[in-house]
Amino acid sequence: MPPQPDWVAVGIGDDAAVVEPARGTLDVVTTDTLVEGVHFDRAFGSAADIGHKALAVNLSDLAAMGATPRSVVLSLVLPPTLPTSDLDQLIEGLLTLASSHDVALIGGNITRTEGPLVVGLTAYGAVRRRRVLTRDGGRPGDELWVTGWLGAAAAGLARLRTPPRVKAEDKETIAACIAQYRRPNPRVRIGTLLGRNRVARAAIDLSDGLADGLSQLARASRVGVVVEGPAVPVHEDAARWFIAQGQDPLIAALAGGDDYEILLAVPRTYRRRLAVIARLFRGIPLTRIGTLTSSLTLVLNTPQGPETLPTGYAHFASS
Amino acid sequence: MPPQPDWVAVGIGDDAAVVEPARGTLDVVTTDTLVEGVHFDRAFGSAADIGHKALAVNLSDLAAMGATPRSVVLSLVLPPTLPTSDLDQLIEGLLTLASSHDVALIGGNITRTEGPLVVGLTAYGAVRRRRVLTRDGGRPGDELWVTGWLGAAAAGLARLRTPPRVKAEDKETIAACIAQYRRPNPRVRIGTLLGRNRVARAAIDLSDGLADGLSQLARASRVGVVVEGPAVPVHEDAARWFIAQGQDPLIAALAGGDDYEILLAVPRTYRRRLAVIARLFRGIPLTRIGTLTSSLTLVLNTPQGPETLPTGYAHFASS
Repeated sequence: MPPQPDWVAVGIGDDAAVVEPARGTLDVVTTDTLVEGVHFDRAFGSAADIGHKALAVNLSDLAAMGATPRSVVLSLVLPPTLPTSDLDQLIEGLLTLASSHDVALIGGNITRTEGPLVVGLTAYGAVRRRRVLTRDGGRPGDELWVTGWLGAAAAGLARLRTPPRVKAEDKETIAACIAQYRRPNPRVRIGTLLGRNRVARAAIDLSDGLADGLSQLARASRVGVVVEGPAVPVHEDAARWFIAQGQDPLIAALAGGDDYEILLAVPRTYRRRLAVIARLFRGIPLTRIGTLTSSLTLVLNTPQGPETLPTGYAHFASS
Repeated sequence: MPPQPDWVAVGIGDDAAVVEPARGTLDVVTTDTLVEGVHFDRAFGSAADIGHKALAVNLSDLAAMGATPRSVVLSLVLPPTLPTSDLDQLIEGLLTLASSHDVALIGGNITRTEGPLVVGLTAYGAVRRRRVLTRDGGRPGDELWVTGWLGAAAAGLARLRTPPRVKAEDKETIAACIAQYRRPNPRVRIGTLLGRNRVARAAIDLSDGLADGLSQLARASRVGVVVEGPAVPVHEDAARWFIAQGQDPLIAALAGGDDYEILLAVPRTYRRRLAVIARLFRGIPLTRIGTLTSSLTLVLNTPQGPETLPTGYAHFASS
């Protein structure tokens, strides 16, 4: 275990952990649980990948609130088939990502079970009161922006589920997508920047896909959306892979989950301020993909004309 | 869902919950997960009992830190065999106990699985910095005190596991023990009182039994213990049941888990102050059972002479 920061008064090993709240901030709390057979397959990656991803999912939720992550507690339910070395690697994968974002593991709980592996995490962050980014602040006319690229994790997962019939030259292409599926990069720094700069009226993370995120943000804000299909930043390798499979990359990217990007609603008048902040995103693009409307409908503009945004896809297990 | 207290800025339904920390206090965080087949059997109680107990286990950990509980987040992993009405009852059982202690459910997560039912809870409380009760503050000469009665839950569980060969007149006797197993009462108010009054140097909850608690407190404080066997407050009905089964009630009560009582180490000079506080415990007794020593050994004094304290019993799943 790495040394605990000085704001941790009591760490692992007592009945509970005790931490000093960050001065002048609110506590942000999120929980997400990864269950074997539902959220991951042990054949599709390493134990370290599972540990990384369990934390990434939670850090993404904090980022989408504008919060800076601070600490995490872990609950593990272990099947007898899990080797001890896998347990070590899982925790190692989690701790490596944690230390890269200065997140402290402050508590935990381990149970043996005959059932599947369950990795439960509860993460805490800090945000100033007026800088909380909720889903419900969007207004008609706000522009919709998205961080990064979409669809890579979905392509990577689809490839892991498909017998390897791809040509050798395609293997390298899909490797980046598989890596994105196994080890997503939560937008921690971007979340903190967005929280501090108050350019966004609403934000949501895209753990369940872009279509789901659009639909949830619209519902919470009581608005509609128009998405410009060609503007959606589909990951280049993912697009190539979906096309090779005979699928529409845009539809696949809209439906696919496991994109830990952030969707923002930003007033049009803040476009310049947003551009200034986006320069601090260290190479992660920020792309305008549409607009909030007053009509309550979800519209996807395609080169063939407007369509209803397909929102059928959703994990049962959304947070 | 009951209405949220005004210190909850963002409750269930966004990427994360946002809460205002209690002024001038530290955050206390604990997580405990109940797994079907390990911590409970659905045949041994109702779904509401499971919801109650999952929260009780966590509130007991907070109480043993001297903290006042405030909020909780819930993570459920549901097998297909769990009826929807059981899910409702489980949450109802949890919310009923939560509201009786002014605890707010601020977030959650539900996943379907083919495996066993998993109920994960992370609970938060507040405590002032100098009032945190850890396990490691005990010193040689401190007196050991325990709240309530011990062994009832163990007797209740043993009865549920045994074919009902008991006589009719014994049924009523064991009913209280079964109730104690199914719906433990965490010592929330006592924990808050102990935290405020700073009479204890160390405290631990007895979720894994008295023997385990004594051993853990001694190890953390780097001291030994001498327990006066006849002083241990074994629950009267449990004692009768264990005797009827041919077991030593004291040994059964020492080994049995699921006692959500609190073990305290208190300087001898604070005995009068402790008595004053104990008058506020509303009928829950506080019993002196032994002393901390400098010898690092764990001794049980019995009428037959001193023995080594039996500490073999432990859940794999301690928190």
